[in-house]
Amino acid sequence: MIKSPYQSLEDRFRRMDAVSGAMSMLHWDMSAMMPSGGASSRAEQLATLSSVHHSMITDPEISDLLDGAEADLHLNNWQQANVREMRRAWIHQAAIDADLVEALSRACSASETVWRTARPDNDFKAALPGLEEVLNLSRQVAEAKSEKLGVGLYDALLDQYEPDGRSCDIDVIFDDLATFLPDFLDDVLSQQAAGADRLPLQGPFPADTQRELGKTFMTALGFNFDHGRLDESAHPFCGGTYDDVRITTRYDEADFSSAMMGVLHETGHAMYDQGLPKEWRGQPVGSDRGMSIHESQSLLIEMQACRSPEFLDYAGPKMREAFTGAGTAWQTENLLRRTTHVEKGFIRVDADEVTYPAHVILRYQLEKAAIVGDLKMCDLPGAWNEGLNNILGITPPTDREGCLQDIHWYDGAWGYFPTYTLGAMTAAQLFAKAKHDKPEILGCIAKGDFSPLMSWLGEHVHSKGCLLNTRDLLKEATGEELNADHFKTHLKTRYLGS
Amino acid sequence: MIKSPYQSLEDRFRRMDAVSGAMSMLHWDMSAMMPSGGASSRAEQLATLSSVHHSMITDPEISDLLDGAEADLHLNNWQQANVREMRRAWIHQAAIDADLVEALSRACSASETVWRTARPDNDFKAALPGLEEVLNLSRQVAEAKSEKLGVGLYDALLDQYEPDGRSCDIDVIFDDLATFLPDFLDDVLSQQAAGADRLPLQGPFPADTQRELGKTFMTALGFNFDHGRLDESAHPFCGGTYDDVRITTRYDEADFSSAMMGVLHETGHAMYDQGLPKEWRGQPVGSDRGMSIHESQSLLIEMQACRSPEFLDYAGPKMREAFTGAGTAWQTENLLRRTTHVEKGFIRVDADEVTYPAHVILRYQLEKAAIVGDLKMCDLPGAWNEGLNNILGITPPTDREGCLQDIHWYDGAWGYFPTYTLGAMTAAQLFAKAKHDKPEILGCIAKGDFSPLMSWLGEHVHSKGCLLNTRDLLKEATGEELNADHFKTHLKTRYLGS
Repeated sequence: MIKSPYQSLEDRFRRMDAVSGAMSMLHWDMSAMMPSGGASSRAEQLATLSSVHHSMITDPEISDLLDGAEADLHLNNWQQANVREMRRAWIHQAAIDADLVEALSRACSASETVWRTARPDNDFKAALPGLEEVLNLSRQVAEAKSEKLGVGLYDALLDQYEPDGRSCDIDVIFDDLATFLPDFLDDVLSQQAAGADRLPLQGPFPADTQRELGKTFMTALGFNFDHGRLDESAHPFCGGTYDDVRITTRYDEADFSSAMMGVLHETGHAMYDQGLPKEWRGQPVGSDRGMSIHESQSLLIEMQACRSPEFLDYAGPKMREAFTGAGTAWQTENLLRRTTHVEKGFIRVDADEVTYPAHVILRYQLEKAAIVGDLKMCDLPGAWNEGLNNILGITPPTDREGCLQDIHWYDGAWGYFPTYTLGAMTAAQLFAKAKHDKPEILGCIAKGDFSPLMSWLGEHVHSKGCLLNTRDLLKEATGEELNADHFKTHLKTRYLGS
Repeated sequence: MIKSPYQSLEDRFRRMDAVSGAMSMLHWDMSAMMPSGGASSRAEQLATLSSVHHSMITDPEISDLLDGAEADLHLNNWQQANVREMRRAWIHQAAIDADLVEALSRACSASETVWRTARPDNDFKAALPGLEEVLNLSRQVAEAKSEKLGVGLYDALLDQYEPDGRSCDIDVIFDDLATFLPDFLDDVLSQQAAGADRLPLQGPFPADTQRELGKTFMTALGFNFDHGRLDESAHPFCGGTYDDVRITTRYDEADFSSAMMGVLHETGHAMYDQGLPKEWRGQPVGSDRGMSIHESQSLLIEMQACRSPEFLDYAGPKMREAFTGAGTAWQTENLLRRTTHVEKGFIRVDADEVTYPAHVILRYQLEKAAIVGDLKMCDLPGAWNEGLNNILGITPPTDREGCLQDIHWYDGAWGYFPTYTLGAMTAAQLFAKAKHDKPEILGCIAKGDFSPLMSWLGEHVHSKGCLLNTRDLLKEATGEELNADHFKTHLKTRYLGS
């Protein structure tokens, strides 16, 4: 029996998904298991699989098959969405030739390697040539994709992480936030200064106990350990595949909160992956809907749900018991004060949810300028310091605490940064609607029961895969387009009690 | 610059090696890390990578490149050997078409799955249809390869595991052993019965302590933890790649000896992999020389070196200390009695080194008959029981303890079994020559110093990769062709003291 173009595409994309899944597992292993001496053969494995994947999707027959499938009138809406996502993936891969892919991949590896020592050494000059080369090649990618996608240079890169994401939309929302934040932050800081001090929690906090506690919370959230694991790595992440989700964290025996909040954050990501539509496994339409939605799921769990007094009513006693803590420092009020403390700082990954958007907006503005050629990398340290001062009123004393802190640009992830804050706003918007639809959500969380929240997310987000684009997904789930209002309301309620 | 055919082949085989390495890592993960729910997507990943590998090596250009490289007069001896091994790999893969590869792969998966419950259920009938299908397809593979290799059907399968291995050679050596064993075994058993009893060691033996002790011995043997790991799996094995060797074991808290001997055995394999020639990484000539040599390295460590009084002089006190053991049971004499106990049994993997060859010879005879069509699978249980009775004088009470015990045939590994005993004899022959060349070997082992032994093995075996074929490798290392004499001498010395 002859296969239809659509069926042939399903077969081919299933094979590509298997190759991607293999790569994802090898990445996890590299971070969580691999001994240092395995690095060079692992790099060879990943480079080879990456080129295998690229040649699969750029196979000359794919183009005709896509045309054929798009003309097929018998496809249902999931299948149509599947073809739409296949076309998107094809455009992104076929826009750039194998030589550019490989040149960029090598430049990123080389640049990232230099950055790993340049950062602790506070040596921006050492990292500059690699960064320039990565930016130069990323701009070539942007040009090639810009033409195929019919969008501007920056949006062509943004689209890789945030399908259909456009900077003109982001500008509106980020401007709104940037206007709101400075005065609001002043208010929060003065109210915080007038309130009670954060009391320290007495350690040490053994890693094994932290791990067990993390697993307890993962189980409460609904993480399915038949389809995933919790391990350790230097930088926490959520990897693996939808059927085998590998999350990691890092334990600090002097402070359990970073590992715990990390586990909650990654579990938010993991629940999305585990909840993707089972009948569309291996197909583009069965995968997650880009980075802002993915980040919204982790931030909804970590920030919206688990820095709440309700979560601490449930989790606080478990933490006390696990670490045999006692005294007022372990009461919900102090625990809440600790998890919602606000402070201006230089480092994005250490930032609280109030100041975090400022870090993102700074990077977004700088990378937009760099991609269109308005910012040279040799001028980056000055632009960074000036920008942070404008938005937060502080200036990093060193590049290590400034433009050397994040791996993204040095590793080729240009256009990624806005998804963090888009995710935070999406999380606030989704959580507000979920609580509206199911008023029992917070009360249940106070008893360790996440099922009302998770079933709402499962129905409105996880099970949709890529059936809808991001805009429609959010509109169907919340009745509104993405906007900053819910995020601002959330911040005002939590930090000013108004 | 235009590449020579040889250079093009090196590039292509390096890519294939990267794909194989990726598969090897995914296999390790499947056994040591993967949650059960990851099975189906892992199967998809492995099947896809396997077909990618098959299409790389059967690419139509490979044949011309091989012809070109074989005609190249400027290759050095390593490069020539590399071409020889490329040709061998190509013959094995190109002999069978993709449909047969896939049919066999699916039949093996299905049959193995049934076998996993048929064995505990003692239900040979349930496993029979799958076994027949696997045998049928394996015979088709044998026919296709037999023609290309110019050897008989059985040898065509044997050649997959034991390059250039031929049953006419094995027959001579196995007949020699089969003649020797029955009387020898009687002598051993009566001498053992007349001697002191084995005293039991008092447990429990915590898994963590076993793991640390295993790592102590691995370190003593020279295992490089920058290029490998020790983990747990249901069935111990040595996997990963030469730069990142993953060995596993299984801990029984009532008896530490099986995990410990397992770690020593797998470390023998691992030292071979870690010692392969670094300058030939990723090339066929840089890989191990087939299963009999690989098994010789594990058995040399486990059986020859580490069931010796010298090893126990070193290891016994470490074991006592780790498990806070005391009394005569922990003295070297009793520990030696425990590690060299001989007993007729039904199960191959539980057999001692004296009775083990009997299990292998039985399987070798049966599988030879099955492949040429002289033994039908419905007659397997009767033939098995009769054969075991002939060679060991015992009859399995059930198929679970008979023809259902090993996964090999159900999973398509026809022609594999003889390599175990070829490995045992090779180990004895190599160890005898090593001790002859370096008389200090055993004395050093008694002090926990394996370096004289490992440097001899490194020089004569590990660093050779596939430069020589098995016969020449053994002749260069020991001055003799493979024979059973050293193995028999070893058994007589150890078990009869003569």
